[in-house]
Amino acid sequence: MLKGKDILNTAQFSVQELNLIMNTAACFEKQVKEGSIIRNLEGQVVAVLFFEPSTRTRLSFETAANRLGARVITVAEPASSSVAKGESLADTIRTVDGYADVIVMRHPMKGSAQIAADNAIHPFINAGDGSGHHPTQALLDIYTIRKEKGALGGHTVAFVGDLKYGRTVHSLGYLMALYKNKMIFVSPKALRMPEEITADLRGRGAEIEETEDLKEALAVSDIAYVTRIQRERFEDPAEYERLKGSYILNRALIDQAKKGITILHPLPRVDEISTDVDDYEGAAYFRQAHNGVYVRMALLALVTGRA
Amino acid sequence: MLKGKDILNTAQFSVQELNLIMNTAACFEKQVKEGSIIRNLEGQVVAVLFFEPSTRTRLSFETAANRLGARVITVAEPASSSVAKGESLADTIRTVDGYADVIVMRHPMKGSAQIAADNAIHPFINAGDGSGHHPTQALLDIYTIRKEKGALGGHTVAFVGDLKYGRTVHSLGYLMALYKNKMIFVSPKALRMPEEITADLRGRGAEIEETEDLKEALAVSDIAYVTRIQRERFEDPAEYERLKGSYILNRALIDQAKKGITILHPLPRVDEISTDVDDYEGAAYFRQAHNGVYVRMALLALVTGRA
Amino acid sequence: MLKGKDILNTAQFSVQELNLIMNTAACFEKQVKEGSIIRNLEGQVVAVLFFEPSTRTRLSFETAANRLGARVITVAEPASSSVAKGESLADTIRTVDGYADVIVMRHPMKGSAQIAADNAIHPFINAGDGSGHHPTQALLDIYTIRKEKGALGGHTVAFVGDLKYGRTVHSLGYLMALYKNKMIFVSPKALRMPEEITADLRGRGAEIEETEDLKEALAVSDIAYVTRIQRERFEDPAEYERLKGSYILNRALIDQAKKGITILHPLPRVDEISTDVDDYEGAAYFRQAHNGVYVRMALLALVTGRA
Repeated sequence: MLKGKDILNTAQFSVQELNLIMNTAACFEKQVKEGSIIRNLEGQVVAVLFFEPSTRTRLSFETAANRLGARVITVAEPASSSVAKGESLADTIRTVDGYADVIVMRHPMKGSAQIAADNAIHPFINAGDGSGHHPTQALLDIYTIRKEKGALGGHTVAFVGDLKYGRTVHSLGYLMALYKNKMIFVSPKALRMPEEITADLRGRGAEIEETEDLKEALAVSDIAYVTRIQRERFEDPAEYERLKGSYILNRALIDQAKKGITILHPLPRVDEISTDVDDYEGAAYFRQAHNGVYVRMALLALVTGRA
Repeated sequence: MLKGKDILNTAQFSVQELNLIMNTAACFEKQVKEGSIIRNLEGQVVAVLFFEPSTRTRLSFETAANRLGARVITVAEPASSSVAKGESLADTIRTVDGYADVIVMRHPMKGSAQIAADNAIHPFINAGDGSGHHPTQALLDIYTIRKEKGALGGHTVAFVGDLKYGRTVHSLGYLMALYKNKMIFVSPKALRMPEEITADLRGRGAEIEETEDLKEALAVSDIAYVTRIQRERFEDPAEYERLKGSYILNRALIDQAKKGITILHPLPRVDEISTDVDDYEGAAYFRQAHNGVYVRMALLALVTGRA
Repeated sequence: MLKGKDILNTAQFSVQELNLIMNTAACFEKQVKEGSIIRNLEGQVVAVLFFEPSTRTRLSFETAANRLGARVITVAEPASSSVAKGESLADTIRTVDGYADVIVMRHPMKGSAQIAADNAIHPFINAGDGSGHHPTQALLDIYTIRKEKGALGGHTVAFVGDLKYGRTVHSLGYLMALYKNKMIFVSPKALRMPEEITADLRGRGAEIEETEDLKEALAVSDIAYVTRIQRERFEDPAEYERLKGSYILNRALIDQAKKGITILHPLPRVDEISTDVDDYEGAAYFRQAHNGVYVRMALLALVTGRA
């Protein structure tokens, strides 16, 4: 169903395709945990091009490719690339497309993923294109929800933190609506979810509330998806200092939250979740990062037709 | 025939050895395209040391090694190397020679390849030593000509652009002479092919013409090998601006060129070939980059005695 | 015996464990030299995290992992890591621990190895934590002594150079004492072995002499372990210039040394061993670097329970 396709954004998937990705990921997870040697991509070369540093995502993709038996060629350092010699992205991709069987790319420029996909004959996977899309993050988020909660729908999900600039929460919001979840958007006024996204989600039938009160939201949520509030987003530093404390999740807040609440975070976490939350059993953010390997295995195997 | 040998420059090869490399490359190309899993270098470690960045060439060698079933260890970033701690190149190579079964190196210093080869017990492949040699580029160039044209000899080949400093065109000129091709050197006066090289090639029996007129040369050439003219090469920037337009290959020029002309370029291309040439069927420069993988597979397999 | 254990420092090992590591390394050396394809770690992923550059050690670990059939994911460039985004080391390790089956780390901060080991469920190997420990260096040193001399004990070992700051000589001193070797510490006064280490070694029954005279020491030593004297260690540059010549090992000194003396050095060597020593048959420093691969293979296989 996904053979030969490019993975560009979250909106491209049908529910059938999402289910296929989830089930394929679950199958690979089982095989890895049983210690099976997986050879689906033996003899294949995966190019992992990170023109913007992101160790976490790069290592996750490289692990996924290696666990499938593929070989990996990597650009981890933008400065060392031919791009520095004035080559166009299209030319770089056409060259790498002659080396590899599938291309994974992160690039700081919005829209770069589409350019790359257009210039590659082989399947292309977007690992983040600036303020554009980062579909594998949203996919690993829902894979984690399915694993932690047993189902993808019927939950109340609080989105916490920077909802204005957070690429991650926009994609996830769309998927949560698709699977009939109720959403509560929790943020300072200056970082509210953009009006057009909220409207679009409501248009798709989603039930949405907005609040500035984290504690209140946690009391009724099954899942809290926390993101970082960055100082740079505020014109007035004093405003940042005043607000940030209100969106820090700590153990005391967990203890007043709905029983069994699951805590997610795309990582890296700086101080928006206190480390005293880490040993709470519903703190799923490191399991979430771990799940990314299986979801990326699934995508690599599906687009190359080797799942 | 090449087992245990170092690959340092193009002039070292007999015609028999060149033919062996071409045939071995063709054999690997066939196997890769059939989807065979190749294990010639299974259990072998290939060190890929790039003390000067060149993503294209590095990824090509790494792809070649991986497609042969070898494992790769890489230095992609000169700053991170022991060289930074004041170690001599000889010592660095002697150490890596204790890790790997074959060493590939790019280094900014002319002559560094010979030093490295002298200090390695294992076979050594020069991936470019400054203004010295870059033999694998010339080998992939002739492999491409053989594939595109069906034969290596009997063509008229235009060399276009910077013929004075272009390391690539010097090596290729030598091989084109060896295979009885006629050559036309097309460049601004300031960037003409060095006198001694032209004389040497003529001494080997090559028929050579020199001109500043690109259009005229294209009208009678079977192949055009285009290289970049770099601003830094001109003392007078105005001279650069005046000249550069005359050596830009575009679709209009192609339409007036000899029918079936093949366009080659070592890449990266900046603006010396317009993108409107890219979908001309004789535009072979991306196929040429792709061919580099098979030529490098051939070299790795031959020098390790595993072809 | 070492399955599931972390490798943090040299002092953690019993003599039985040291013997196991030596014997396992010897077994892998034999297999590699016979050209066997080794699959002990097939299907396993080894994370090699170098938050401080050290090409030699990084490539040695990567070679070891690859020769065991494992796959490698690498951070070679601290700047490109999530650490740059303010993430704690604990969080970085918890994430990587979700990707890999064993973690190797070099980090500039003393004590970082313990933090990493505490946050990883999988086995952790310290590849150097600042002024802390670098256990695999000491292990490859003794593996080299065993190979070069036929036994680990009963020798007179001269330690030469910077004994004050040299992390390597501290660990090796401890192991040499354990195996009943006599030690001669040869250094300028300013760089003497720290009093507490000398006292501790004597307390363990070691026979130790201290001298500033290299020639005298070489005359009675079976092994000389040479380290670099760094200019930065001296407050007075004139003092450095005056002294450094006295601790340079050259061929003339070798010719007056005890017959059969073995010369070791952790590398990189700058000028503290003249290159005219390199073809002396007892000059074992490049063999020593080479041995590091087998010792690291042994550790990777033992901690993952796959030796």
